[in-house]
Amino acid sequence: MSVLVGVIMGSQSDWETMKKACDVLDELGVAYEKKVVSAHRTPDLMFEYAETAAERGLKVIIAGAGGAAHLPGMVASKTVLPVIGVPVKTSTLNGLDSLLSIVQMPGGIPVATVAIGQAGATNAGLLAAQILGAFDGGIQQRVAERRERIAKSVMESSVLE
Amino acid sequence: MSVLVGVIMGSQSDWETMKKACDVLDELGVAYEKKVVSAHRTPDLMFEYAETAAERGLKVIIAGAGGAAHLPGMVASKTVLPVIGVPVKTSTLNGLDSLLSIVQMPGGIPVATVAIGQAGATNAGLLAAQILGAFDGGIQQRVAERRERIAKSVMESSVLE
Amino acid sequence: MSVLVGVIMGSQSDWETMKKACDVLDELGVAYEKKVVSAHRTPDLMFEYAETAAERGLKVIIAGAGGAAHLPGMVASKTVLPVIGVPVKTSTLNGLDSLLSIVQMPGGIPVATVAIGQAGATNAGLLAAQILGAFDGGIQQRVAERRERIAKSVMESSVLE
Amino acid sequence: MSVLVGVIMGSQSDWETMKKACDVLDELGVAYEKKVVSAHRTPDLMFEYAETAAERGLKVIIAGAGGAAHLPGMVASKTVLPVIGVPVKTSTLNGLDSLLSIVQMPGGIPVATVAIGQAGATNAGLLAAQILGAFDGGIQQRVAERRERIAKSVMESSVLE
Amino acid sequence: MSVLVGVIMGSQSDWETMKKACDVLDELGVAYEKKVVSAHRTPDLMFEYAETAAERGLKVIIAGAGGAAHLPGMVASKTVLPVIGVPVKTSTLNGLDSLLSIVQMPGGIPVATVAIGQAGATNAGLLAAQILGAFDGGIQQRVAERRERIAKSVMESSVLE
Amino acid sequence: MSVLVGVIMGSQSDWETMKKACDVLDELGVAYEKKVVSAHRTPDLMFEYAETAAERGLKVIIAGAGGAAHLPGMVASKTVLPVIGVPVKTSTLNGLDSLLSIVQMPGGIPVATVAIGQAGATNAGLLAAQILGAFDGGIQQRVAERRERIAKSVMESSVLE
Amino acid sequence: MSVLVGVIMGSQSDWETMKKACDVLDELGVAYEKKVVSAHRTPDLMFEYAETAAERGLKVIIAGAGGAAHLPGMVASKTVLPVIGVPVKTSTLNGLDSLLSIVQMPGGIPVATVAIGQAGATNAGLLAAQILGAFDGGIQQRVAERRERIAKSVMESSVLE
Amino acid sequence: MSVLVGVIMGSQSDWETMKKACDVLDELGVAYEKKVVSAHRTPDLMFEYAETAAERGLKVIIAGAGGAAHLPGMVASKTVLPVIGVPVKTSTLNGLDSLLSIVQMPGGIPVATVAIGQAGATNAGLLAAQILGAFDGGIQQRVAERRERIAKSVMESSVLE
Repeated sequence: MSVLVGVIMGSQSDWETMKKACDVLDELGVAYEKKVVSAHRTPDLMFEYAETAAERGLKVIIAGAGGAAHLPGMVASKTVLPVIGVPVKTSTLNGLDSLLSIVQMPGGIPVATVAIGQAGATNAGLLAAQILGAFDGGIQQRVAERRERIAKSVMESSVLE
Repeated sequence: MSVLVGVIMGSQSDWETMKKACDVLDELGVAYEKKVVSAHRTPDLMFEYAETAAERGLKVIIAGAGGAAHLPGMVASKTVLPVIGVPVKTSTLNGLDSLLSIVQMPGGIPVATVAIGQAGATNAGLLAAQILGAFDGGIQQRVAERRERIAKSVMESSVLE
Repeated sequence: MSVLVGVIMGSQSDWETMKKACDVLDELGVAYEKKVVSAHRTPDLMFEYAETAAERGLKVIIAGAGGAAHLPGMVASKTVLPVIGVPVKTSTLNGLDSLLSIVQMPGGIPVATVAIGQAGATNAGLLAAQILGAFDGGIQQRVAERRERIAKSVMESSVLE
Repeated sequence: MSVLVGVIMGSQSDWETMKKACDVLDELGVAYEKKVVSAHRTPDLMFEYAETAAERGLKVIIAGAGGAAHLPGMVASKTVLPVIGVPVKTSTLNGLDSLLSIVQMPGGIPVATVAIGQAGATNAGLLAAQILGAFDGGIQQRVAERRERIAKSVMESSVLE
Repeated sequence: MSVLVGVIMGSQSDWETMKKACDVLDELGVAYEKKVVSAHRTPDLMFEYAETAAERGLKVIIAGAGGAAHLPGMVASKTVLPVIGVPVKTSTLNGLDSLLSIVQMPGGIPVATVAIGQAGATNAGLLAAQILGAFDGGIQQRVAERRERIAKSVMESSVLE
Repeated sequence: MSVLVGVIMGSQSDWETMKKACDVLDELGVAYEKKVVSAHRTPDLMFEYAETAAERGLKVIIAGAGGAAHLPGMVASKTVLPVIGVPVKTSTLNGLDSLLSIVQMPGGIPVATVAIGQAGATNAGLLAAQILGAFDGGIQQRVAERRERIAKSVMESSVLE
Repeated sequence: MSVLVGVIMGSQSDWETMKKACDVLDELGVAYEKKVVSAHRTPDLMFEYAETAAERGLKVIIAGAGGAAHLPGMVASKTVLPVIGVPVKTSTLNGLDSLLSIVQMPGGIPVATVAIGQAGATNAGLLAAQILGAFDGGIQQRVAERRERIAKSVMESSVLE
Repeated sequence: MSVLVGVIMGSQSDWETMKKACDVLDELGVAYEKKVVSAHRTPDLMFEYAETAAERGLKVIIAGAGGAAHLPGMVASKTVLPVIGVPVKTSTLNGLDSLLSIVQMPGGIPVATVAIGQAGATNAGLLAAQILGAFDGGIQQRVAERRERIAKSVMESSVLE
């Protein structure tokens, strides 16, 4: 199974958030690679990662970062693959800084931004799967089944005491 | 050329923003349909639109809305296609309300959110093209060429007086 | 005693907040039903709930949700009953996202929004009772008496040490 | 036709916003009274207005104010009728101050808050009509018909050029 | 020693914050009274308190409240004494709601607003003393001495390890 | 008539805002002086102004500034007179920066903060008069009469068309 | 006179802001170069610019950008020269997005951030001169003289009518 | 080794943050002095510190403060040395107040602002070293080596489990 998604993050400490993206990809049977790539501490590695992503067969990149979160946007500037940005929650501004640093990209280079924190990381995994699924019936089917399971559990578990 | 992208918006007044997405799709030769679909004023139409999108051959949906912007997230809840959300600028809170209403989706249903306003709409068109381009070399090539043209014009036009 | 108020929430985890609304309705002798109904995970159930609410005899709906909180507004788009929205506090933006997603509805579909969190849920219960009380002297009387009890306790308990 | 809704506002300058509420009530055939009542400049008048509202036959009060907007909450503290608060847009903080001053009421005294500015005022009129409509089939019918007209116009007018 | 300052607060739970104001008044030998007076739960008591404050000999009122904090502004509307407002920190918006609800008063009725939380309460006590001190050399002297003591302790204690 | 109030501001451009404070003082017959004193451009002048204010007979200082507004707090650190701070509206952050820079003083040195912009400047003038009025029956009387005139005009002018 | 300061900006449209930095450098006799270098549209040019800055003799880099403003931080990651970041005002969020994207850098790579907009650009020029001036008595002298001129003009021009 | 950097802070409690700046300076072999200097509690000491800094041989000043953080800007107004401001995190507004109070300086007096909290303090130390390093090859070399060590550790430690 070829690796279709690259999951990168600005620091080891982002892993607690970003593993939610990997959990979803595992659950849906989508192959991915994962790596710490820092925009500010390893800028050349970041550029190399982004430049070679398409030729290595990746179809989507998921990038998580916090604070002045430049990783998703800079990776996006160096690849024509779709890049999903996950704003990691910060201890001072709760991730509002991460969100604005990722989502407010100028016209020309888009980043597909999801919610702050773990819910966002889960959704980054799902969004990658939905993008792949638009061209791969098997993945799309598994996304649809996951939704049905969750809908069912919402309807069954509804005991409020 | 089959229609691959659906561009919808919550109201006629969002067209000024959303046409930027259509301009980019035109420029890149990506076929799309466009329509006003209001989450709050035409909820059934919205659900029908979302439910039939995949079977009608769409691969990506771009949805723009302002204020308590529920259109992108609700469409996303009714399709497994990737949905790109464009936060339209508002007269009171400048689109911060639109942004948070679109991006802060709970785990389970992602919306690929772009920047507030026209820059975001342009990027929504580009993101749709990049998603398609990951599976269509021709589109990907045109996205890459567009970037080169823009980079060149940045480098040439740099007269600061 | 017929059920007059529907209390719904986007997820099981909202119950901790929303039970405050139920506590007040219990205290004031107003019959209600309660249910988890998710805008994003069970959209069809949500529409069905909203569409049938009036004919089932409900007079007011209380809907609580967090983050990109679409439940109150979407339910409001599918019923002409008054809908009260409770913004649930979120771990990242403290419920400011929930508040803006609920209150900033476009002209045409109102949501009666209350404060973020448990105080808001308590007030949602009271607001439902006040709406009913405008047409039911017994309920209005009990609301008035509750206020008097509280005013009295404020005036009596005022020991500051 | 007896007067069922009181529309009050903190200053003459709020009328530009608040007339939208009156327009809707006119359109739906709901009788109302309107008046400038300032929490800070005419506090006694405000208390008298609130205290006598129910006995004068009002069923709902709509109160608009800007900045440190105390009118809706203080009126609510002096009546058991449902009070709808409209945050008027301000020149400095765009109405975020008005919104928080109105919506963040402590547990005990609810204010049904709507969106900032004219859209909020329109919705205040509609919410009042929906509250009355829950107990008056004629009004409810007119609210439903208004929605249908608007839905139809959304679907027909959808020309995007 | 006649009572010159009234310290009031919207609820018993504000005492943890407001006792800092009382501590400073005690320290500076300024006589005060303290009381829970709720704008929303005991509005008539609040009006009576404010109306009679000047004739009872008070020179300054300190009022603390949280959330949609109407107490300082409403008291100010009913007395021509200077009113100092203390924004109490809230669990959801950290007191930003309290601050805006207190400080953004419309032209005509000022509230002398201090910082959010305990530092603000301390400063409310000091500000009351400084107002009194402008007309009472003894109090002014004690304020000046307090500052000198604190400056000295800053300069002496400066051990950073 | 001796000068009791000093009105200072950080720059010539603040005069448009601060003249509202002077207008009120003129109206109420309170003598004042006015001056541009910049915390950052004329720090020594600022310190000298603050240090000599009390001995020159001033009872209250009103200080307006915008952005990183340090004038009110720094003047307050050099005098035991009460200092009223007026946050001037800024072109970028609308005066939220000015407000937080003025109001969030640490425990020890209070600044009596009023609303952002012209309404705040008007209230600064009124607050100064109310502080003086607590010890001067004539001024207090004129403040009370001004309020009555305004209340009357609110009640008379209430024509909403 | 060798070029000591590089002034770069993300787009031609930032020139209106950034020329203020150049004006100050001209006034103080500090030689500089200026150039449009876009983080997102010309990433390789940006890296090359940053990598060669020190060897070309630059001592300080001033970088201005708006929105998801990655230019200052990314340049900083590729040079050990001090980098000054100017947040350009944006049409949607007024430059708060630019500010947070520039200032909230993670530990390891600092950006010396100044105020949003033209005042910030002016200060970027001054800060560059002050950095150079710490090691060049002539520049430091000219900075000091500029301050004296401005202080004098503040003290002389203070006519408030 | 002569002392080149002054590290000051508004209160003893800021030391927990500011020691990160000192740690970096220690690590890079840059001599510094450290001191508590409060803008509000010891204003004269602050002015004296700033006025004598250059003649005592300092080249850069690092100043940390929280809330209405006036220390960096006021020190900057009294010296032509570059001043780095560290916004200390606050318990109420998380340091957003500190950030805006420091960064939004008016044109004329710059403060080189870094991130809120400990990351910012670390970067303040690094920025000081980079400023010195632009004129001292040894320091610049040690900054470059520190970056290489960190880049290497990012690339080696990247185990995500």
